[in-house]
Amino acid sequence: MIDTPPQHQHPDATLPIGVFDSGVGGLTVLAALQKRLPHEDYFFLGDTARLPYGTKSSSTIIRYSVQATEKLVERHIKLLVVACNTATAAALPVLQKMYSPLPVIGVVEPGARAACNALKDKPGGNIVVMATESTIRGSAYGKAIRSIMPEVGVTGIPCSLFVSLAEEGWMDGEIAEAIARRYLAPVLGNKEGRPDCIVLGCTHFPPLAPAIANVAGKDVIMVDSAATTAEAVEQKLETLRLLHPKRAGKEGNSGKMRFLTTDAPERFARVGSLFMGYPIKVEDLELVTL
Amino acid sequence: MIDTPPQHQHPDATLPIGVFDSGVGGLTVLAALQKRLPHEDYFFLGDTARLPYGTKSSSTIIRYSVQATEKLVERHIKLLVVACNTATAAALPVLQKMYSPLPVIGVVEPGARAACNALKDKPGGNIVVMATESTIRGSAYGKAIRSIMPEVGVTGIPCSLFVSLAEEGWMDGEIAEAIARRYLAPVLGNKEGRPDCIVLGCTHFPPLAPAIANVAGKDVIMVDSAATTAEAVEQKLETLRLLHPKRAGKEGNSGKMRFLTTDAPERFARVGSLFMGYPIKVEDLELVTL
Repeated sequence: MIDTPPQHQHPDATLPIGVFDSGVGGLTVLAALQKRLPHEDYFFLGDTARLPYGTKSSSTIIRYSVQATEKLVERHIKLLVVACNTATAAALPVLQKMYSPLPVIGVVEPGARAACNALKDKPGGNIVVMATESTIRGSAYGKAIRSIMPEVGVTGIPCSLFVSLAEEGWMDGEIAEAIARRYLAPVLGNKEGRPDCIVLGCTHFPPLAPAIANVAGKDVIMVDSAATTAEAVEQKLETLRLLHPKRAGKEGNSGKMRFLTTDAPERFARVGSLFMGYPIKVEDLELVTL
Repeated sequence: MIDTPPQHQHPDATLPIGVFDSGVGGLTVLAALQKRLPHEDYFFLGDTARLPYGTKSSSTIIRYSVQATEKLVERHIKLLVVACNTATAAALPVLQKMYSPLPVIGVVEPGARAACNALKDKPGGNIVVMATESTIRGSAYGKAIRSIMPEVGVTGIPCSLFVSLAEEGWMDGEIAEAIARRYLAPVLGNKEGRPDCIVLGCTHFPPLAPAIANVAGKDVIMVDSAATTAEAVEQKLETLRLLHPKRAGKEGNSGKMRFLTTDAPERFARVGSLFMGYPIKVEDLELVTL
């Protein structure tokens, strides 16, 4: 049983935050949220039955994203985080319109902000965005970055294989570096276009950062969306006066985390633990159908 | 418009053969079918919106397979080929029961037969099955091989990354070989267990055969399901007297091929051409929803 409030109650500060991803990658964002906002309760939904989203068309990604949002809205949430770059790039405006006034926050704009912060002393620098085929196709990062720093150079590289590499748990070593070398070859061979900053524009990629850094060089700044998304969520909740009243005095003093997955809970727990950085127990998971 | 016969007509020899796969890998089977049975018409369905199946649970794979079969049965077919090892391993008996008397042929039993044929002079040899996580989990190949050759050694290796490697079109070179080396390390390092035959137990893997052979050694026999599945289909149609009456006298003398896909027709055409061995045109494709 889930302790949701009765149907007639309006969303309020004690409701959980909903977070969704195509799979387990979004758990890197959930971990950052929990670190910044430990008093909040969270519902995380991973649509593992249909991942990856990154090689699919925009219309399919929008359809899947609406179904995932629907499932979280049923559980009564006060804010939705789209913790998937592909879904953000394809579906964020649709979700914001469909579910207004529910605040919906994506990961592309925060990721773009992180990249621009990293380059604030180098306004003519180069940013390379490594993301899924679908995210690169829509140029979501390029647009978001240029709206903050119009003079920066942005190159997008579709890196579909990184998703399954991370899902396989092969985060480092010869193979991860060989794949990174092949993806980065066009920009590393180009002296003028050499990256100053690499955006890990898919929530599956942060665990691959050390392997990518070994290839790109230690002087390249590597950023992802997790920390800046948590910051954006905190600001939004503050503005709306929806931050959870602190549970002072209670042991541990932190909120609850519940996980929904559309397939294979054991696999979600096993691979998800690699992304969260601590073990996820199968008993904390609920299997749902979208 | 599709020239299906009227609803009251019973399945007959002029109806098309239905073939389905989770994506484009099954096109290797379709190519073998067309080579052996060029007079037949074919409907190929690739469920690209939800691929890969190989990392999903059996119940999800069964549900998806039933939906794909339903879509092909609507078009009136005389025989169904499940051109996906994962779907065959999880769903073949269910599909055979649900759609009886429609003949339904999978790719695991033909693949097992190909391996046993290859080892017929070496009854104590070793067979290594490279397949998806789900196919290996169910031991479908081990059971099928041992029912033909009980004394043979069978080792299954889950090779999830090969699917996305093939979908990325990186069929050969350093990365394909490094991944093959990592997957095969446990059996190549073991002198007594060294493989005599490798079964490419996923329809995505045949294009990777040269890279795998470079790692495994030229003396290892490599087999897949495509040719033996086409043989099994021919035998079944013969037995049921359902072989297409030859279109003698007509130019080219060969049947029609129509493709259904659940997502991104351009991607299906582009990657599918690599598997078919000749260009698939977007105009021969129809987008369907399952």
